Order: sequence, then C-alpha cells, then structure tokens
Amino acid sequence: MNAEIIGIGSELLLGQIANTNAQFLSRQMSYLGIDVYWHTAVGDNKTRILEALRIASERSDIIITTGGLGPTMDDLSKETVAEFLGLEMVIHTPSLKSIEDYFRSMGRVMTENNVKQAVFPKEAIILPNDNGTAPGAILEKDRKIYIILPGPPAELEPMFCKYVIPYLEGRTGCRIYSKVLRIFGIGESAVEEMVKDLLLNQSNPTIAPLAGSGEVTLRLTAKADSEQTALELIRPVQEEIEKRLGNAVYGYDDDRMENIVLDLLKNKGLHLALAESCTGGYVSNLLTNVPGASEVFLEGCVTYSNNSKKSRLMVSQETLKNYGAVSAHTAIEMAEGIRKTSGADIGASVTGIAGPGGATAQKPVGLVYMAIAGPNGTKVMEYRLTGNRQRIKSGTAMRLLNCLRLYLLEQ
Amino acid sequence: MNAEIIGIGSELLLGQIANTNAQFLSRQMSYLGIDVYWHTAVGDNKTRILEALRIASERSDIIITTGGLGPTMDDLSKETVAEFLGLEMVIHTPSLKSIEDYFRSMGRVMTENNVKQAVFPKEAIILPNDNGTAPGAILEKDRKIYIILPGPPAELEPMFCKYVIPYLEGRTGCRIYSKVLRIFGIGESAVEEMVKDLLLNQSNPTIAPLAGSGEVTLRLTAKADSEQTALELIRPVQEEIEKRLGNAVYGYDDDRMENIVLDLLKNKGLHLALAESCTGGYVSNLLTNVPGASEVFLEGCVTYSNNSKKSRLMVSQETLKNYGAVSAHTAIEMAEGIRKTSGADIGASVTGIAGPGGATAQKPVGLVYMAIAGPNGTKVMEYRLTGNRQRIKSGTAMRLLNCLRLYLLEQ
Repeated sequence: MNAEIIGIGSELLLGQIANTNAQFLSRQMSYLGIDVYWHTAVGDNKTRILEALRIASERSDIIITTGGLGPTMDDLSKETVAEFLGLEMVIHTPSLKSIEDYFRSMGRVMTENNVKQAVFPKEAIILPNDNGTAPGAILEKDRKIYIILPGPPAELEPMFCKYVIPYLEGRTGCRIYSKVLRIFGIGESAVEEMVKDLLLNQSNPTIAPLAGSGEVTLRLTAKADSEQTALELIRPVQEEIEKRLGNAVYGYDDDRMENIVLDLLKNKGLHLALAESCTGGYVSNLLTNVPGASEVFLEGCVTYSNNSKKSRLMVSQETLKNYGAVSAHTAIEMAEGIRKTSGADIGASVTGIAGPGGATAQKPVGLVYMAIAGPNGTKVMEYRLTGNRQRIKSGTAMRLLNCLRLYLLEQ
Repeated sequence: MNAEIIGIGSELLLGQIANTNAQFLSRQMSYLGIDVYWHTAVGDNKTRILEALRIASERSDIIITTGGLGPTMDDLSKETVAEFLGLEMVIHTPSLKSIEDYFRSMGRVMTENNVKQAVFPKEAIILPNDNGTAPGAILEKDRKIYIILPGPPAELEPMFCKYVIPYLEGRTGCRIYSKVLRIFGIGESAVEEMVKDLLLNQSNPTIAPLAGSGEVTLRLTAKADSEQTALELIRPVQEEIEKRLGNAVYGYDDDRMENIVLDLLKNKGLHLALAESCTGGYVSNLLTNVPGASEVFLEGCVTYSNNSKKSRLMVSQETLKNYGAVSAHTAIEMAEGIRKTSGADIGASVTGIAGPGGATAQKPVGLVYMAIAGPNGTKVMEYRLTGNRQRIKSGTAMRLLNCLRLYLLEQ
C-alpha cells in the first residue's frame, strides 16, 4: 500500500506556516511500513482541491487530507471529498453533542456555523477530536482509503496516534511497536559500523538509524499481532545493541539528556551548580526547562569576564595569566570554585572559544575545556568542535551534560 | 503569473525533514506578487519526477524544483528536467572551475562524480552557488519558466535572493522592495487597530501584519522601477506608523532584541550583568549568542535557590521571608545586588513562577517580577504571563530585554 498526503490551506501556499503535518504523517507512515510517494499542498479552493483528489485517487491507495475542517466558509475539505466521491452529507449526532459540550465547558456560546463541524459524508468512520472541535473521518470507496484530518498539529497528531494507527494496523493486519535508542558520543557512521551485521540481517524488528542535533538514534520497529510479542522481538536486538554501544546509549524514546542528568542527581541525592563561560547560560537554560529542576540544581554562574571568574569562582590570577581563560587549569578551578562557593555536591564548568572572534594560533575557535568537581576529585576534558557560534554553544552544552551523566553513573 | 514548487528528495517523504524550502519560496513569491497555487513533494525517482513535471507544466507558469542537485546517483533533478524538455546536457566550464576551486580551498580532492554538478541542460541560465558546490539553473521553454534550486536551505535561500529575485523582477517588470518593522509590547489586534486606516487604504506600499514568537511585524512592500523610488514610497508610511507606535518599534528587517540591547550598551559605553531566577539562563544565553557580547556583558548569575540569591546577590533573609523569592522587593534587591557585586553599570534581574509547580493562591504560575538597577536608580516591573514553562521562560526573557532596551533609550 502507498499513500499521498494532501495539505489543504492557503496559509501553506503563502508560506505563513511550514507543512509539518506532512512530515509528522510521513514519519508515522514509514513506521507503519506504508510508503508515502507524494505530498501535495493546495489552497482553500474547491476546484483545485477536486483536482488534487482526482490526481491522488489515480496514483495512491491511501489519501490523507489535513486542514480545512473548521467552521468557516473557507473550510472545504469534507464537503469536497464528499462531492468527489458522490456521497451525501449528514449530521453526526454524537459529534454535534461533543461540540456543544466543548463550548459549554469553555463557557462560550456555540455559534450556528459550528454545526458544520458535525456534518459528515454518509458512511464515514468518525474520528473524535479530543483536543478541539473538528472531528476527522475515514472513508473507503473503490478500494481507496480517504483519511480526513484537522490542520492544527495539536489536534492532528493525537488523533492520528489514537484512532488512525489502530485502523491502519487493522488494515495491514499487524501491530507496529517501536523503541528508540538515543546515542551520544559516537557518530552516525561509527554507530552503523558497530551494528553493521544487525543492520544487514534486520527483518523483524527493523533497525533505522537517524542522525540529528548532535546525536544518533536507532529506531527498532517490530511487527507483531500483540504488543507483548512485539516487545519480545525487540528485546534481544536491543540488548545486543546496548552490549556493543555501552553507556553511549543515554536514553529511550522521548528522553532528553537534561532529564537524564536531573533524574540521576535526584536518585543519588546530589545537588549541582554550574560555571559556564563560552556556553553563556545555555546549559542552565536546558536544565531549568525541566519542571522540578530546582530540587537538585542550586545555581549557575555565567562568568564571561575574567573578573567574574576570579570573584565568583575564586579562579586565581596566576592561572588566568599563565594558562589563559580557555585552558584545562582554568576549567578545573572554575569547577572546584563553583562547588565550593555554592555548597553543591557537584560543580561543573565549561570554558572555550565559541567564535567567530577570540581565536589565536594555539587556541582555535571550537576549543573547549570542561571540568567536573565532586566528592571524589575533579575530572577535566578537552574537545575541539566545529561550526558556527550557535553550533559550538549547543554542541558544548550537550557534551557537558553527557560528561555529567557519565560522571554520575560512576558515583 | 502563478507558480508551483516541487520538492525533490526521499527525505521529505520519509518525514526526516519538513519542507521548509516550500515555505521560504512561497513567502518570497508572495512578496513578489506571484501566486503559488501548488506544492508537490516527490522522492528521488525518475518516473515520478517526470510525472510531477508533466502535471505542473499543464497548470503552472513558473515551476520551481528544490533538491536533487548533488553529486550522487540519487540526484536526478537537472537530468530529469532536461529529459522532460528534450534538451541536451553539456558541461558548463565556469561552474566546473568554481567546483574545483571550492574543493581546493577546502583542502580536499574533488572526486569524479562532482563533475556532474557542472553539467546543465543546454540554454540554461546558470545560478552560481556561493555557499556550496551545486549551481542552480533557469530554463525557459514553451512560455513556461523552470527554476532549478539546490536542497540545503543555506544554499537555496541566498541563491534565490541574489539571483532569482532579480530575474523574476525582470520578468514581472518591476522591482520589489520591502522593509519590516519589528514591534514588541503591543498585540497583533491592537497594532492593526492603531494602523487600521493605513491597512484599509494600502496600495503601494502594501502593509502586511504578521504575529509570531511574541512579537508583531509589519512588512511594507513597494513596487517601483528603482530601489530609490521604492524607498521613497515606503518612507512616509513607515514614518506615520512609527509616529503612532512610538518606541514599540524596536527594530527593522532581521534585527533581534538581543542585538539591539547589546548595540545600545556599546553605543552608551555601559556594561551589563544579569541575575536570573525563573528564566534559568535563557537571557544570558540569548545575549551570548551574539558575537562580541563579551565586550559589554560581564556576567550572569542563575540564582535558582534562595541561598544563592543571598550569597551571590546579597538579597536579605528578611526580604525573602517577608515577601518571598517571587516579589518586587526580591527583584529589586537582586538587580541592585548583581550590579554591586559585578561592578557593572547596569544590573538586571528577573524572578517568577515558570510552573507547572510552585504556584500559590496569591502567586499564580506566570507571575514575574523584573528590575533594572543603574546609576539613576532602580525600576521594577510586574508581568502575568500564560502558557507552559517554556513559553513563560521565553516570554519573560523577551520582556526583560525589552525593558532593558527602553531603560537604555532613556539613559
């Protein structure tokens, strides 16, 4: 089976938004083992929507439309699909009741045009909208499947996961279960090399590598008739991969490095303080994005100037003079200084040259030192990163968090 | 004239990337006054690329392809357009030389398959690639225009702006010139209300409001036969808008709030230090994203715990006990404390409840206090923000930068 995604909405063609729904749906379909061969985007124009449906129905088995389900005159998706398939539109009473309830719960009056959102082509399977007023629908006609979804991603994504995936699994006759392994500190080609034989012999589960944002992920996807069976298929492959990659596997599925570090601190009852120079607050910002970070994160010092390194962190004038602000010695004194002055169990520091200015012959842009001071002594690390200022900052931040993770695993 | 954008690349259909090129090009075309009626995306598959070209050539005047210009076997765009139009492929010598120079400057050896990137359909107008190895091309045939662009946005966007816009302006017979006014502190509907008469009577320049990321922009676009004339058309409208919106207009075109604040500090010869609580380093991170921030930004303290507010910023135990960490009193002491302990001319502080936890009946999630201490005294502001933790952090950061901007304008 193959699929085509038709995005409906003039805001796409004006460039006001990117078609992220097509990306989300394509990725989900690939997990389901269904090939997507075409994306199309068309405005809120009946003639062109009909043309898009005609072309899609001639070349694709599954046609997914997104957008155009709202209450206004502009919203034409359902009506046009019904016209294209020669189906009558009827009121779907449970949907009408849901929409009325939704308005009541918001303390707002439902206007007449909202009734439109409860009108569907006859014979449609209705997809409830748990996050808005416009339900979706599935229609089967002439061996083609039409899936009609709302435009806002916050409505489309949960609707697809909760209602459309089980439907498609029912059609393809098998259940799909995925587990993502998140890997940091080894590049994509090295990861592929390390699991090459598994990649070559993959069948069920399949193994899909993906690189992005400085990390590599491996998605293991099993097809089975129950979740239990799928998990049993995934487990030995996952264990084999983890045996080979060791603690470069830092998390699973939606895990983020900052959550892992905070969880380790909580589990071990340790408090952290940070001294950042070249990252300029990036690491503190990542950690404090996580609700409850304040339980274990005491404070951070963004010591950009030499004076602040001395006054806040007790870095010595001699060290700065003899080795410079970007040096292993300074990183060590910064980590030990933030630990001492904050009273935290763990002090972590980073100093480097984010560029584009500030480099010397000995110290190029991208040279970074980081240190971690704890009850059992201090570790220091040197890295050489490439890219522009932002990439060096974010790459450095991820490396510091990863160093903290590895350090905490040993405590 | 109307246009269609064909994205070529299997990574689009696998959902590995969103089709942001279609968004960028659609927005640019709308500025040029050219309607985009269709987006299509298709994989690296010759049969389907040919089908996409056939369909597009039947319904669109301008067909823009993106992607598929690389050196590998997968990259099929130019060859397939040439086949579709019945044109011969020939080596373009200046492009071959540029590619050779590019490899030489990178200290790498050019492999044989890179020659492919210098081969073009006969009669093509070649578009130099100033940011990579794959040039683009324009072809005119049977009163249709085919524009072939590379996939990476960092190559496509400058190529489009530098070479394609002047070409299209030549075809449409007029020059387009835009100026964006960036507005902070007034909502979209209030801005529209304040310039309603100008919006209703717009013709040349046109005025397009757009809201996003907590700010509002107004894009003034003039059509004229010279840049000078366009500027003269824009100037009186811009002046009228600025008269009405006052210093809510914080910048122009690609300006960012953090750059404006840093420039003001530099121009006035002032140094800044920050004390952040609820924003957790977000503001420091924004400022240090700008090269050269270190000239005026001395340091930041992310004082998450009460202890750190006392030890780093000299906030008094009495203030914390009587008014709480989230209070105007604490914000004032934080700003004055960071100013004193850092030696900066300006100390700025922020404390608030980013949520989802930490709220009380008196202090809801989103309550934020910020203060600015300088040579002429201390100002304090209270805000109530809505949204999730990230939105509250980023909204607070923008407000603090805007307060700093307004404070510095008065110095």
